[in-house]
Amino acid sequence: MSKNNSNVSTEPYKGVRDFYPEDMAIQNHIFSVWKKTVEKFGFTEYNASILEPAELYKAKTSEEIVNEQTYTFTDRGDREVTLRPEMTPTVARMVAGKRRELGFPLRWYSIPNVFRYERPQRGRLREHWQLNVDMFGLGTTEADVELIAVAYEIMKNFGAKNSDFIIKVSSRKLMNAVFGTWYELDEAQSKALQRHMDKKAKMPEEVFYMEAEKIVGKPFEFLNLSHTSSQYEEAMAFPAIRQAKEELDLVISSLQARGVTNVEYDENIIRGFDYYTGTVFEVFDTDPANNRSLFGGGRYDNLMSLFGGESLPAFGFGMGDVTIRDFLDTHGLLPAQTSTTQIMICIMDVECKAYAEEVANELRTTGGADGKGTNVALNYSYKNISDQTKAARKLSIPQVVIIGEDEVKSKTYTIKDLAKTE
Amino acid sequence: MSKNNSNVSTEPYKGVRDFYPEDMAIQNHIFSVWKKTVEKFGFTEYNASILEPAELYKAKTSEEIVNEQTYTFTDRGDREVTLRPEMTPTVARMVAGKRRELGFPLRWYSIPNVFRYERPQRGRLREHWQLNVDMFGLGTTEADVELIAVAYEIMKNFGAKNSDFIIKVSSRKLMNAVFGTWYELDEAQSKALQRHMDKKAKMPEEVFYMEAEKIVGKPFEFLNLSHTSSQYEEAMAFPAIRQAKEELDLVISSLQARGVTNVEYDENIIRGFDYYTGTVFEVFDTDPANNRSLFGGGRYDNLMSLFGGESLPAFGFGMGDVTIRDFLDTHGLLPAQTSTTQIMICIMDVECKAYAEEVANELRTTGGADGKGTNVALNYSYKNISDQTKAARKLSIPQVVIIGEDEVKSKTYTIKDLAKTE
Repeated sequence: MSKNNSNVSTEPYKGVRDFYPEDMAIQNHIFSVWKKTVEKFGFTEYNASILEPAELYKAKTSEEIVNEQTYTFTDRGDREVTLRPEMTPTVARMVAGKRRELGFPLRWYSIPNVFRYERPQRGRLREHWQLNVDMFGLGTTEADVELIAVAYEIMKNFGAKNSDFIIKVSSRKLMNAVFGTWYELDEAQSKALQRHMDKKAKMPEEVFYMEAEKIVGKPFEFLNLSHTSSQYEEAMAFPAIRQAKEELDLVISSLQARGVTNVEYDENIIRGFDYYTGTVFEVFDTDPANNRSLFGGGRYDNLMSLFGGESLPAFGFGMGDVTIRDFLDTHGLLPAQTSTTQIMICIMDVECKAYAEEVANELRTTGGADGKGTNVALNYSYKNISDQTKAARKLSIPQVVIIGEDEVKSKTYTIKDLAKTE
Repeated sequence: MSKNNSNVSTEPYKGVRDFYPEDMAIQNHIFSVWKKTVEKFGFTEYNASILEPAELYKAKTSEEIVNEQTYTFTDRGDREVTLRPEMTPTVARMVAGKRRELGFPLRWYSIPNVFRYERPQRGRLREHWQLNVDMFGLGTTEADVELIAVAYEIMKNFGAKNSDFIIKVSSRKLMNAVFGTWYELDEAQSKALQRHMDKKAKMPEEVFYMEAEKIVGKPFEFLNLSHTSSQYEEAMAFPAIRQAKEELDLVISSLQARGVTNVEYDENIIRGFDYYTGTVFEVFDTDPANNRSLFGGGRYDNLMSLFGGESLPAFGFGMGDVTIRDFLDTHGLLPAQTSTTQIMICIMDVECKAYAEEVANELRTTGGADGKGTNVALNYSYKNISDQTKAARKLSIPQVVIIGEDEVKSKTYTIKDLAKTE
């Protein structure tokens, strides 16, 4: 791992990860749960390049991200190109590009790697992979409910219990109604307050309220919209607030009816991106040691207008590999370490090679628990049994077959479990 | 697909591809054959970031590639970073970084996307995915034979026949022996001739020989090393040539003994990268309409020295998705188009929703040919049957279940095959 002046370093680029097989196995486990779950619900996979024209992000992504946090450079043909910081603009671009040929409601998913140029810290690397799940063409609460239910099913399929996480939902539509009618803010004030609220958790409470007062021009107090609140009836007299709140209540009650009992309304849920227009949600770890936002998403009905088309209802969420791996780790839900290779065949000397290859061929074709073939590595090092077995252990291969003179003569072999012969 | 001044374009960045579900399905088919085949032979998966320190490529990749063909830029922390143009330097870096902890012989594979900044043309995009298969720690011909056999098995598992492709092998060691002893060239001349030979197919024959004569300082004539050649005995008198040729003959005969009959020696096989040290191979399509190199690889025993470690024998090959897709297309080997979603449930009105969701749940859990659950999309658009069925066809979903008043009353449903109801 050392680096000196004459040698090239073996370290990866700052803030990105190497995936050695043991890490890759975890990554593949996470991807596999993601794929199986969303495909069960009829989502199909798409993908695109990590290279996107920079203009794609300039209109709708939050300014902070585009200006300060993307990898953007000019190519030799003088094109400004960005390493995608998120997948939503890409999927909107692709849907807009083939809108007439696609069938709706459209259910799409992808597992892209995305890039942010920021100071590396826990759970915030410069590159991470992110499941993206989106439904296009359905503007009703059924889409909101299904997408949040899919997010819930993924957590369950990872082995999480309802008590391990909580789904907090809110609504941009409701927030805008409250901003416009209750707080009586204009558009610029609304936007400023929204961004300020998004950073609430990052500052002391008194700083939050002081700053909020500056924005709204009067002492700021959250509108409490729980059904038991004294403000509830008064707020419901505003049609825009009433309609948005009823819609959100329907999303929550529909989820609860499906067994998603760990869901609640939380007016603090904003989500960073500007493009959300309706229901937004965020999933939190309930473990006090890891009590943070895991992932989220929401409705974005206007992103298509970026490409000049008619607006198209859309709801989506993204779920990052780093955060989910931390969650699985914290809750003891990571799978046990094994290699995709089941058996190493240790060949004792070159005279045994032909029979060893015969055995390998047989095991690859008809071996394994289901008799459909298993994964076999041949060890051609011709070292002694102890050295070859040691190599198998280092490679996390669980079983060995030793082919020596006796096996060649008798044309028989035994599969040995390394855990049992330790 | 149009672009005007006010709207953002729906086109991807120049020279890269969007993968709509129908393309993704083909991509997933290719990846799946790759993974299954190499895992059968005991190779395990690794990965790394596309971002690498630029210094990694400056020592061993061909100069043309580093200087003219990579995406290299300076990040905001003044680090020079390159989008990996190939995976071999990365895998060498990773092996060097954990050499003591890894078990050898080490079999690794990865399916990275790699980037080249070049004029887009057929089969040469700016981004493509590439299976990389490498074995470390075995310097004998068994490694050469196994890796070439794995490449052969992949082609067979794609459905190719032996007559569809030919594996041409050569040897850098043999070439160096011939250059040094037969042509009597010094190192600079050898390198120049090697690079010149690598471009042989790109120029008229007389230009090739004229230029070669300039390099070697006398009329240039290929040394014919086939066993029937008049030069054969004379060349074999040089021990370096003899040893290298015998090694290469052993690789070829071992492959033939395994059923790989479409393999032959071809002294024109060079491979572009400087780091090869022994056997090199290249697989060609035999179809006259698509008669070109599909992929290749070879032995590179000295790459570890880049990181200051002891040399470590290595043999690897890479296989690109674009080229292999062209090959499968040319030979009629692409899989039939289907979605990962098996059934769309068409819901006739909102009153039928609860039962439709019940049916979806049942099919997801116990449906499908094996009774282990199938992939189901619910259509909540509440449009008429004809519209919903049309959407299913556009989405390439092969079956529908219609849930209307009758189905809700009788609590029964029928799975209809769309192909049969057309």
